[in-house]
Amino acid sequence: MANPTPAKKSDSAIEIYHLLLSCPNRPGIIARVAGHIFEHGFNIADSRQFDEEDSDQFFMRVEFNPVREDADIEEWKASFAELADDYHMKWRVRAQSQRCKVLILVSKFDHCLADLLYRWRIGELPIDIVGVASNYPRETFRHLDFTGIPFHYLPVTRETKMEQEAQIWALVQQSHAELLVLARYMQILSDGLAAKLSGRCINIHHSFLPGFKGAKPYHQAHARGVKVIGASAHYVTAELDEGPIIEQDVERISHHHRPNDLVSKGRDIERRVLARAVRYHVENRVVINGRKTIVFTE
Amino acid sequence: MANPTPAKKSDSAIEIYHLLLSCPNRPGIIARVAGHIFEHGFNIADSRQFDEEDSDQFFMRVEFNPVREDADIEEWKASFAELADDYHMKWRVRAQSQRCKVLILVSKFDHCLADLLYRWRIGELPIDIVGVASNYPRETFRHLDFTGIPFHYLPVTRETKMEQEAQIWALVQQSHAELLVLARYMQILSDGLAAKLSGRCINIHHSFLPGFKGAKPYHQAHARGVKVIGASAHYVTAELDEGPIIEQDVERISHHHRPNDLVSKGRDIERRVLARAVRYHVENRVVINGRKTIVFTE
Amino acid sequence: MANPTPAKKSDSAIEIYHLLLSCPNRPGIIARVAGHIFEHGFNIADSRQFDEEDSDQFFMRVEFNPVREDADIEEWKASFAELADDYHMKWRVRAQSQRCKVLILVSKFDHCLADLLYRWRIGELPIDIVGVASNYPRETFRHLDFTGIPFHYLPVTRETKMEQEAQIWALVQQSHAELLVLARYMQILSDGLAAKLSGRCINIHHSFLPGFKGAKPYHQAHARGVKVIGASAHYVTAELDEGPIIEQDVERISHHHRPNDLVSKGRDIERRVLARAVRYHVENRVVINGRKTIVFTE
Amino acid sequence: MANPTPAKKSDSAIEIYHLLLSCPNRPGIIARVAGHIFEHGFNIADSRQFDEEDSDQFFMRVEFNPVREDADIEEWKASFAELADDYHMKWRVRAQSQRCKVLILVSKFDHCLADLLYRWRIGELPIDIVGVASNYPRETFRHLDFTGIPFHYLPVTRETKMEQEAQIWALVQQSHAELLVLARYMQILSDGLAAKLSGRCINIHHSFLPGFKGAKPYHQAHARGVKVIGASAHYVTAELDEGPIIEQDVERISHHHRPNDLVSKGRDIERRVLARAVRYHVENRVVINGRKTIVFTE
Repeated sequence: MANPTPAKKSDSAIEIYHLLLSCPNRPGIIARVAGHIFEHGFNIADSRQFDEEDSDQFFMRVEFNPVREDADIEEWKASFAELADDYHMKWRVRAQSQRCKVLILVSKFDHCLADLLYRWRIGELPIDIVGVASNYPRETFRHLDFTGIPFHYLPVTRETKMEQEAQIWALVQQSHAELLVLARYMQILSDGLAAKLSGRCINIHHSFLPGFKGAKPYHQAHARGVKVIGASAHYVTAELDEGPIIEQDVERISHHHRPNDLVSKGRDIERRVLARAVRYHVENRVVINGRKTIVFTE
Repeated sequence: MANPTPAKKSDSAIEIYHLLLSCPNRPGIIARVAGHIFEHGFNIADSRQFDEEDSDQFFMRVEFNPVREDADIEEWKASFAELADDYHMKWRVRAQSQRCKVLILVSKFDHCLADLLYRWRIGELPIDIVGVASNYPRETFRHLDFTGIPFHYLPVTRETKMEQEAQIWALVQQSHAELLVLARYMQILSDGLAAKLSGRCINIHHSFLPGFKGAKPYHQAHARGVKVIGASAHYVTAELDEGPIIEQDVERISHHHRPNDLVSKGRDIERRVLARAVRYHVENRVVINGRKTIVFTE
Repeated sequence: MANPTPAKKSDSAIEIYHLLLSCPNRPGIIARVAGHIFEHGFNIADSRQFDEEDSDQFFMRVEFNPVREDADIEEWKASFAELADDYHMKWRVRAQSQRCKVLILVSKFDHCLADLLYRWRIGELPIDIVGVASNYPRETFRHLDFTGIPFHYLPVTRETKMEQEAQIWALVQQSHAELLVLARYMQILSDGLAAKLSGRCINIHHSFLPGFKGAKPYHQAHARGVKVIGASAHYVTAELDEGPIIEQDVERISHHHRPNDLVSKGRDIERRVLARAVRYHVENRVVINGRKTIVFTE
Repeated sequence: MANPTPAKKSDSAIEIYHLLLSCPNRPGIIARVAGHIFEHGFNIADSRQFDEEDSDQFFMRVEFNPVREDADIEEWKASFAELADDYHMKWRVRAQSQRCKVLILVSKFDHCLADLLYRWRIGELPIDIVGVASNYPRETFRHLDFTGIPFHYLPVTRETKMEQEAQIWALVQQSHAELLVLARYMQILSDGLAAKLSGRCINIHHSFLPGFKGAKPYHQAHARGVKVIGASAHYVTAELDEGPIIEQDVERISHHHRPNDLVSKGRDIERRVLARAVRYHVENRVVINGRKTIVFTE
């Protein structure tokens, strides 16, 4: 069985690096960071910076690429680590070609899963799907092509939840997954697992948060008579549906729409909101700032 | 000082009537209603109908106009009242030329008021503004032209709230206002006044309900880190921000936006949402169905 | 290999019929149509009507279901045909359970195809896909599950275009396809074939028509520097990209987006616009009125 | 008669400067610019940068404020001019408190004018309106409060167009207007005047360009049967409706909407699109790049 070879976004031989950093604000950071990149033989192709006034934190995202023959990313990293220490920075850098390893969890409804698979396959999402795990058996997804992707059936009951979460965590470690995506996974993660996955577990909630938390949000929306419904992608935290929101979108509805119609319309919103959130994350565009996010979109 | 003469939507001499009705569902209603209109010499120009399954209620909106010389709307009304009794209908009919009398309440922020005045003046909103009342003095709105519109300064304190509401109610009665619009009126109506105005008092709330009820919703939205903000126009009920929603709309925001930016963006959403809700109401497009609305939009 | 059994939208045993009709306007049509439906033992669950002033045409859509034991749709049809003659109506009626037979044509890009297949499989789109035909071989779509759907490889060159179109037409006839969907089929149909398929061939064009007709619309949009891009689903006519528009939608872009990014964003717009247009068509919601459409949406 | 004193966006005593620059791309620019700002005692509060690949141009926007006692903007400017020369930069810098002088041209329809006046009055738009000129008399705008704003009645016929444009140009010079806003001014500027105002004259066109150029775009849109209408704000160039687009927005329509309804819906789109474009311009967020724009939005 051949491994699929997704198309690359760019066939260019030149590597591009995505740097994302945050630190307490103080004057001169940009000059230092930009100067450091330039002096090591790289060119800044795109940069964004933001001062958050409430927390007085500084946030920056830079795309840069080598322009001198002697530009060496490992050397740059080592040197940048020292600079970062001076400023008490949290930072990460990723080569565009180094695709993020993603593990997907899913329950019965597979529209988000099917969508992520499709975007991955045609090369739109720069990720490596290292596995799909579900509390439903493989047969549930019989129309989806998992060629090259390990599938893990992890049934769960109230009694076995702890063991099943241990299996999930083992999978994360064995597959070296950097990101866990809950693509309509209808189990609530325990506080312990949520804590271990802090900042690298994205959930799609099928309402426009903070409205309609918890179960059956489309039915709640129908009962309340709202005129617009939405979906929200957020990082998972111990508090249900309260994690930092990455992306949201909405669609207009009318009195004609029954709860099932909202579910149907919602599928479209959910899949595009989740796909955007995953892309923002893996392109190093998202920083968590307390219970909120900074998202450097295009 | 001359009274302004707003442009008419249509210069046609032919009158159009907007009929709105609801009743327990049973077969044959449309045939009866349509037949009745036809037999009395009128033509149906537009009709919409909706069966609400949960409550088994029937809702219908009809636009009709005379086509026979002997078509007489008063005669039609008398006759229709009998038919309506048979079906236990709630119904109302309004000639398009008979503009709805509207009283506007406003506090300090006048963007919705300015917008309603403008739309009224150019003839876009088929209403008669019979008065503007505020807990702020006339001077607050010194840049707005109130030519032809009585202004009422109704200051209020916690101690005088009951008396001030009595003044509002007196105004409603004296001006024969059919609709009261709370165009960013920052006082909460008492249950008693809300009850008197049931189904004919529209409020604009500056959040995407049910998220961020109560005070300072834009600050709440900023604190929660949502990616989209909105506004909601709803009928006022005794329960704060819980009345039937007529219209909602949203705009996308980013981490760059401070609470004041949200307030600014929100003004645009609020004024268009409120203007739409008022238009839907005065064109007989809205029926309240429990805590929800049926809105027959175009 | 088992045939997939898509979920039904409704498991209700009660059949619902979708009637769509148009005719020269004259008073009393609604009363006649509604009366006729009632007298034959049916109940109207939803109805919409529209008078087009420019052409003085009358358009109506009705959803109705049997409520009397003796209600017989065949009898109703025979009887309604006479009524329709009186009014010079064009009309069609379809049982909701009688799914529209659809043949899909596709070239290399399969995002619309994948999306239609998914919506069909989960029962969201009430259609029967009677075949997929492409000028690209089966291998192009190796990750798509065509279980139960015949695939037809119909290569084409400039010299063989006539023969290939004859094959398409033969397929339409053999499969009894009622609707042909060009899901990013990158060949222009000849005038002859377009004429044969008049009113039952839907194309998705990847621009917000009438802007950017013809080839490479996203590149045209990038060159012009627009701030919003879109897609348009329309009926195919002999005149390229000029057929009656059924549905359009848009997304906001910025200077950051390269033509390839627009292509990527466009995929999302195209697939949802095409899916909506197909649903509107198969639910008897669309009437062609000259070079425009009436679409009775929810 | 007192001059109105619009509220300030920020009451902070600290001045903020908006720098906008473009130049041929080469490595190290950001480091040089950021370093230069830092060394002169300023802090960068916000920065955005963009490399345009097709033209190999570099674009940058910086917001900065003094943090050292000796920070002097005039000194900074003189020094920066030399740096800018090295890089062949086009650049401009503006203090946030230094409001852009704007002259507004308008014809009969005053919805955009009324909206700009309102936003200016409440301090939302950081501009000084130095005049309103129209080919219609003051009486046309009798409900608008022009307190503190000179009004100029400049009637025009085909024969006097040259003279009238000379009057406009004289007004621009006498009022030191930096920006000319065509707020539904229904006269086409001559090539000569357009050339003089290159890059500082914004027009609102009432269609989603490039669709429906020229006269009566809403009637064109109605005739074509589009499902979404829009408006476009663009810089004026000699070629009609072909100037660089700054901002666009849209709204959904249906077959119910007559051309007059589109005109009405369009007013809402036009005023918000024009207001955004003006704000982007005066906040130094827009650079023209050939026939396109770079817009550094929030």
